[in-house]
Amino acid sequence: MVLCLLAAGASFAGEPAALPDSVRAPAEKLRDGILAGSRAADWVREITDAAGPRMPGTPGDRAGVAAAVALLKAQGFAGVRAERVMVPAWARGVETGEVSAPSPHVLALTALGGSVGTPPAGVEAEILRVASLEELGARGEAVRGRIVFIDRPMSRTSDGTGYGDAAQVRSRGPSLAGRLGAVGVLIRSIGTDDNRLPHTGAMRYEKGVPQIPAAALSIPDAELLARLVRRGGPVRVRFTLGCHGIPDAESANVVGEIVGRDKPDEIVLLGAHIDSWDLGEGALDDAAGCGIVIEAARQIAALPRRPRRTIRVVLFANEEAGLAGGKAYAEDHAAELERHVAAIESDLGQGPPLGFSWDAGPNAAAPLKEIAALLAPIGADHLAPGEAGGADLSYLLPSGIPSLGMLQDATQYFDYHHTANDTFDKIDPKILDRSTAALAATAWVLAESSGVLERIPAEKRELPAWLR
Amino acid sequence: MVLCLLAAGASFAGEPAALPDSVRAPAEKLRDGILAGSRAADWVREITDAAGPRMPGTPGDRAGVAAAVALLKAQGFAGVRAERVMVPAWARGVETGEVSAPSPHVLALTALGGSVGTPPAGVEAEILRVASLEELGARGEAVRGRIVFIDRPMSRTSDGTGYGDAAQVRSRGPSLAGRLGAVGVLIRSIGTDDNRLPHTGAMRYEKGVPQIPAAALSIPDAELLARLVRRGGPVRVRFTLGCHGIPDAESANVVGEIVGRDKPDEIVLLGAHIDSWDLGEGALDDAAGCGIVIEAARQIAALPRRPRRTIRVVLFANEEAGLAGGKAYAEDHAAELERHVAAIESDLGQGPPLGFSWDAGPNAAAPLKEIAALLAPIGADHLAPGEAGGADLSYLLPSGIPSLGMLQDATQYFDYHHTANDTFDKIDPKILDRSTAALAATAWVLAESSGVLERIPAEKRELPAWLR
Repeated sequence: MVLCLLAAGASFAGEPAALPDSVRAPAEKLRDGILAGSRAADWVREITDAAGPRMPGTPGDRAGVAAAVALLKAQGFAGVRAERVMVPAWARGVETGEVSAPSPHVLALTALGGSVGTPPAGVEAEILRVASLEELGARGEAVRGRIVFIDRPMSRTSDGTGYGDAAQVRSRGPSLAGRLGAVGVLIRSIGTDDNRLPHTGAMRYEKGVPQIPAAALSIPDAELLARLVRRGGPVRVRFTLGCHGIPDAESANVVGEIVGRDKPDEIVLLGAHIDSWDLGEGALDDAAGCGIVIEAARQIAALPRRPRRTIRVVLFANEEAGLAGGKAYAEDHAAELERHVAAIESDLGQGPPLGFSWDAGPNAAAPLKEIAALLAPIGADHLAPGEAGGADLSYLLPSGIPSLGMLQDATQYFDYHHTANDTFDKIDPKILDRSTAALAATAWVLAESSGVLERIPAEKRELPAWLR
Repeated sequence: MVLCLLAAGASFAGEPAALPDSVRAPAEKLRDGILAGSRAADWVREITDAAGPRMPGTPGDRAGVAAAVALLKAQGFAGVRAERVMVPAWARGVETGEVSAPSPHVLALTALGGSVGTPPAGVEAEILRVASLEELGARGEAVRGRIVFIDRPMSRTSDGTGYGDAAQVRSRGPSLAGRLGAVGVLIRSIGTDDNRLPHTGAMRYEKGVPQIPAAALSIPDAELLARLVRRGGPVRVRFTLGCHGIPDAESANVVGEIVGRDKPDEIVLLGAHIDSWDLGEGALDDAAGCGIVIEAARQIAALPRRPRRTIRVVLFANEEAGLAGGKAYAEDHAAELERHVAAIESDLGQGPPLGFSWDAGPNAAAPLKEIAALLAPIGADHLAPGEAGGADLSYLLPSGIPSLGMLQDATQYFDYHHTANDTFDKIDPKILDRSTAALAATAWVLAESSGVLERIPAEKRELPAWLR
């Protein structure tokens, strides 16, 4: 079932037709007004200062939900609610690491999310350094009894492409090392900074492999280990992780709306996630996204005329450790997903904005170019077709909902990502405003245009294997 | 007793007389050869990788001494020895901090060196934020029962001047707060970064005041507390410090020499300190200085002709927590201090070099200008009279030894100073080479010139009160 584009001459009819003035002029006003100064950073601060770290299922997470609900109500959103989601929970516990030979060093490390703990006395073994998963796989029997150290750097890029490749080490390394008989695994943090602050992130054990404790070393500590290995002779490490799974706990998706004036049942979803890792306060990941979507919707609501369709802000639960919020949303709202005309996710920090990734029917390309033209003056007119809009939107795929992910300059993002350094002081309000402007103008056009984007073709709606 | 300058016409006779070719040409060769590439960074790495953190009296400290002794011997220094020094010792222990109201936050904090610990359950109280020691003193009874939070920022400067003012908070804050009845004190870290890595540093309780636990908050955490205070309502904090004094322990000053060809009993001392704080590995503070002085001396030794006087490298024990090494050196070498013709300290990180602070007789100004002229091509020709050369040299003052402190660009230094981030990866070998070049050329001229610098006038040799 695909809602089709309008005929030529109407808006969204493909290039070179321009957006009608009634759509374009308010979009430009939104864009320029937000660039002149918005409150997006205020919302980031309200969430982070009120709740602190928001690990799924923790008191901080619930405080984040409460803060977001209060904020949306205070700002006049309609239908504000916390939609209950049960989330898997995991607690970090004590973390210590040290080099015991050839020389004494303290290691800054942190458990990967979902790792088993070590025995209370820790694990100690000679390390085996490998530069890649391929090298690890090739080392065979040499792995047995060792602590594997996977020393794969992440490259710094503006589009964040270095992350996906490097993150394979985090997701697949522990199972591969466990299968080969390692007693523990340490990875070089997936990040681009040089601080003694390790980067956590989710991992998952494959079925049937021995579950070994897995931690990330800060990048300076990974470089220390690499130097010690290069000097020759055995390098022994001991580390202790007190982390452990705990019973599923309650969290929530936070929802609030700007009700459409003409087609209130048709929905443009603006998504971000309210949860965060525990080490920092999730200011960039993803209170920034929450601030962007809340402020974008608030600015749209402040226009002289509400848009044709409803703007629905959804702050998802548990993006970081299993996408339980995204899955629950798709289930809870199954009956209305056909009336979701677009979903946009903001989950790449504060920006600046570069454009959008998008996944929709091929005829969506032309109207998206019209939107991009509006964003060219702020450098946000890049369109990257064929990618999912964002992790929280993954479970919307079977419904064919056109999805957009805000592309933002991620050159610095992975300096802070999943570390203790992800705190409010890293937010630059002016940069956040630029991303907010891009998202608001885009959301407005999608909610106001007479036509809608072509939906994802039926044959391209299958969830990837890891989400099924 | 002052060794006087030579008569006019000889070297060091004051401007505009130039250095004789026999002095200047090797100095230029040293300078330019080191700039082309030296091994200074290798020595920093050897010390930090071999020993890790080098808190006075710890195994790491002894490993640092052993590594330095081995290095000096391997590089052909004469008279290499570890001169025993007893140092006060202190151990850090567990450290936790949290905001308990109005919202839950984890605080990144670390005990100030020398602090007493808290009870095992920690201290918890409402905080009282003050912006300065003056404001703290003025708050009187309002301080009683509170955890005082001294929120004084340090300014970023190239000459490090922001440090001295801000560090007053660290040294005097705990005693002032204790006298007024506070139950604990938290200071904004004395630093210029925005990492969740607190800056430690020495403090000392004044006699007769209640000793309360004292810790530094990372700068983002200090900014969080300030924001929470601004929101209004009580802000409660709990923190736990397991730190405690331990019995005095053994450490050592490491000494090695390039013996002078003509006046081997006359000494140009090149100083740095081998100890470090425990949070990082003291790569910048002060393995960098060790690397600079070792390499400078080694490069001088590699010249076709050894200098007239002896170059003595001294890597001092326990600069960070009481200057026990500097004091022991002055006592152990009392008989030969009259034959120390100059002492140069390198303890401001890696550089780039800007020049020298100096303390000597007024007639030393002219010959120092001649040296500075040699350093102008590398930007290191600034001379700052009237300041001590460096903390390790403090106890040389009563002997009137002309002392120089290498001035280095400290714009970034206090991003790392006394934090976990002070690790070898922060060393840039090319920048370190520039500082090494400046120090080597200076040391050569002082060791080779026929004359020597005028000593500090007798009336200006009194130790400051806090060192007596």
